[in-house]
Amino acid sequence: MKISEIARLLDGRLSGAGDIEIFRVAAFETALENEISFFEKAEFVDQAETQEDCLFVPENFNAPLSCSFIQVKNPKLAFAKIAEILHAPKKRKPEIHRTAIIAETAKIGTDVFVGAFVCIGENSEVGSGTQIFANAKIGDAVKIGENCIVHPNVFIENSSQIGNRVTLHAGVVIGADGFGFVRDGANGYVKFPQIGTVVIEDDVEIGANSCIDRGALGETRIGEGTKIDNLVQIAHNVQIGKRVVIAAQTGISGSTIIEDDCVIGGQVGMGDHAKVLSGAIIGSQAGVLPGKIVRAGVWWGTPVQLLDEYKRQNAHVKGITRLKEEVKELKKQIDALKNAKE
Amino acid sequence: MKISEIARLLDGRLSGAGDIEIFRVAAFETALENEISFFEKAEFVDQAETQEDCLFVPENFNAPLSCSFIQVKNPKLAFAKIAEILHAPKKRKPEIHRTAIIAETAKIGTDVFVGAFVCIGENSEVGSGTQIFANAKIGDAVKIGENCIVHPNVFIENSSQIGNRVTLHAGVVIGADGFGFVRDGANGYVKFPQIGTVVIEDDVEIGANSCIDRGALGETRIGEGTKIDNLVQIAHNVQIGKRVVIAAQTGISGSTIIEDDCVIGGQVGMGDHAKVLSGAIIGSQAGVLPGKIVRAGVWWGTPVQLLDEYKRQNAHVKGITRLKEEVKELKKQIDALKNAKE
Amino acid sequence: MKISEIARLLDGRLSGAGDIEIFRVAAFETALENEISFFEKAEFVDQAETQEDCLFVPENFNAPLSCSFIQVKNPKLAFAKIAEILHAPKKRKPEIHRTAIIAETAKIGTDVFVGAFVCIGENSEVGSGTQIFANAKIGDAVKIGENCIVHPNVFIENSSQIGNRVTLHAGVVIGADGFGFVRDGANGYVKFPQIGTVVIEDDVEIGANSCIDRGALGETRIGEGTKIDNLVQIAHNVQIGKRVVIAAQTGISGSTIIEDDCVIGGQVGMGDHAKVLSGAIIGSQAGVLPGKIVRAGVWWGTPVQLLDEYKRQNAHVKGITRLKEEVKELKKQIDALKNAKE
Repeated sequence: MKISEIARLLDGRLSGAGDIEIFRVAAFETALENEISFFEKAEFVDQAETQEDCLFVPENFNAPLSCSFIQVKNPKLAFAKIAEILHAPKKRKPEIHRTAIIAETAKIGTDVFVGAFVCIGENSEVGSGTQIFANAKIGDAVKIGENCIVHPNVFIENSSQIGNRVTLHAGVVIGADGFGFVRDGANGYVKFPQIGTVVIEDDVEIGANSCIDRGALGETRIGEGTKIDNLVQIAHNVQIGKRVVIAAQTGISGSTIIEDDCVIGGQVGMGDHAKVLSGAIIGSQAGVLPGKIVRAGVWWGTPVQLLDEYKRQNAHVKGITRLKEEVKELKKQIDALKNAKE
Repeated sequence: MKISEIARLLDGRLSGAGDIEIFRVAAFETALENEISFFEKAEFVDQAETQEDCLFVPENFNAPLSCSFIQVKNPKLAFAKIAEILHAPKKRKPEIHRTAIIAETAKIGTDVFVGAFVCIGENSEVGSGTQIFANAKIGDAVKIGENCIVHPNVFIENSSQIGNRVTLHAGVVIGADGFGFVRDGANGYVKFPQIGTVVIEDDVEIGANSCIDRGALGETRIGEGTKIDNLVQIAHNVQIGKRVVIAAQTGISGSTIIEDDCVIGGQVGMGDHAKVLSGAIIGSQAGVLPGKIVRAGVWWGTPVQLLDEYKRQNAHVKGITRLKEEVKELKKQIDALKNAKE
Repeated sequence: MKISEIARLLDGRLSGAGDIEIFRVAAFETALENEISFFEKAEFVDQAETQEDCLFVPENFNAPLSCSFIQVKNPKLAFAKIAEILHAPKKRKPEIHRTAIIAETAKIGTDVFVGAFVCIGENSEVGSGTQIFANAKIGDAVKIGENCIVHPNVFIENSSQIGNRVTLHAGVVIGADGFGFVRDGANGYVKFPQIGTVVIEDDVEIGANSCIDRGALGETRIGEGTKIDNLVQIAHNVQIGKRVVIAAQTGISGSTIIEDDCVIGGQVGMGDHAKVLSGAIIGSQAGVLPGKIVRAGVWWGTPVQLLDEYKRQNAHVKGITRLKEEVKELKKQIDALKNAKE
């Protein structure tokens, strides 16, 4: 792809040669000829050891460069978009592997790839263009939309619904029983019914070995465009909105609601029946108590508090040593006053 | 099942029509005709938008309802018990799938289901009524009891012992090597022997992608009726008692003991050789230091402390701001006293 | 193996009979005849209920024992080394299982075991002596060295490189996409390219269900002799040095560097672009902020601080109650002084 085409496609302003071919994206530090890279700040850039042929730069960038550059509003976004084109994920040619076991009642769309040792159960549907890799196991009455990617060793339990363009990374478990038990005195625990479903909307991506439990009675839902990292736990009946980002190893307890456009860090824990309102940002390792309502803003710590409050309180804690010394000093002065009086 | 039968079965007191058929359980908010639901508190219930035909209610409930209701001691428990009957998990018809690979020396009971691509190793035993789903891999000399459910992609290492009515959810790993290494100076680490076993007693349920390591020299044991959520890590030689509940993403380090009837929240971390005594309840994200003994009671925070102490201390921390102001005020008064004296 | 041979092999000083055969290692508490055990401290040892035939003891141990004993510098290390010999992991006889699917362009070394339902992709290489167990899935252009053990249900993504003597436990995912997205306003997220690789050096061990993401543009690297426990998350472009130990459920964010010989506890979280310098020890559940540099020493808490500082501060926090009382007392004294003046 020629630099001039790239500039046109991304609505950028090109400076320098436009007819060089770009084959790959690369990190700025290691970029070579025929590669494009980016940087995000409009500051001096030391190109001494780099050889890229083109750079995305911010609109207010104004320094000389030894290569072509394209001014855009958001260089990282432009870079990501051009990478999607230059490095379009290789799509497997349509094939149903001879070892795959597909129920006769299952409906498989056109241009579908089904890898070795895959199982697809009764009455399940797989949309056109979807790729299901080796060893993935799809239960009965599962609906998978179009152009999805289901990586190896994924398990999708009966009756789950997966939208279009969904990516499930290796080892993901969709629709296992939620964790609900009722104590029956000395007899131990009786299982609360876990007979609901999971709905995953379009354009969701779920990281390796993450688990999305089915609803107890209703459904667990992951909204459109939401991105979930590895080893994340989503419990029964959780409702996650659209365009939510959840980093690795976070756990969301039962029936908690996360509204649209929230950003949740890694290793966050949320109790059950909490509600995270649209626009909230929750820092890594934070803990949200059951039933808590988290408003828009930046949150931190366990139990979660607004980052500003947390910082203020933390500063106070760090100030205790000084406070102790002040109190010691006051004691002395009072003693002196007392002595003077006597 | 008729309402009158349900009332009789659960020792409840029926009010209203008893001859309506109940087909399903449902959440109170969404229940429809021929469904039964429950609520836990003896308060006013707004049935305006619900259509259930029957409700479990507490014994002291005393308000009019537009449907039949059954008074019981524990409505949620009654609901769970009737759900077990109305929604008995579908059992696969006995079958050994033609693609399963079962060692000749393995003993398979009657009424066993073995799914596609399952492997069962030398001298292993599978009890009657057990279902082993697709892609599960059972090592050598493994004993699995009766009426177990082993979900897809589970791995059970050689010599593990699984009791009766055990459920292992998808991706569970039983009996992988524990994490033990001895430093050998500049040469790095030598592996400490990890040659013990895992014993899982009757009626245990283990959540998706959880890991139970084998003992280093002895055994790792999960007691009868214990329930473990998803993505939990149980290290080598851990001893977990009966009827313990462990929520998602909790990790228990080597040789730690958890006695009967404890409740452990999510994302809890326990150091090695700790001991949690019967009846302890440990809140989510708590941290138990190595060697710590945790008595009965409710515990919280890192390092773990009794919830009451934690709350008191937390209140103190929140009071530092005021304390600071008080000290400032005292200073002023002392200065005033000093000045007055001069 | 005779006791005298063991003593010679490990450069230890034997006391007692040397010609008894040792068949197994065992824990001190449960050791029986023909078994060897160890203890680490040079103190009185109560052998009343043990029956081992030999013990490794520290060099300065000087008490009578009812069995033979071998004085060595590091008894636990000696025990681990002899266990490696007495309990050498059984190696599967070379075999390519008839159900395995191996691309014609893949190169398989000598003495390789490939289990049932394994897939090995185009242009991949498997070194001599390596064992790949049932259901493992190896992508295209993957290089696996010699004498590795790849347990069931492991997934290795295209282009990953695995050294010699590497052990990957069940359910490990190597080379899944890293978690990187760029916000595109109301349109939601565009995926940042995740087109790099993973390099795992010699003698690495990775625990069950852990995930090592591929680099976004460059590589993710795990250094020689590093040991990683279960359910650990290593994000894109993380660089881990040699002989690092990482306990269960820890998560390392993108581009973070951990230098040689660090020890990281369980459930630790590290932000992106942090740097942990050689020799640092980080306690369990600690949190390292993005960009933080952690020097050699023992670290604790969130945000991480030196353990000594943490303890001092914690003691201060616990002292707030007393401080409050002191301030109250000062108030009284000042009031008394004021009253006296009037």
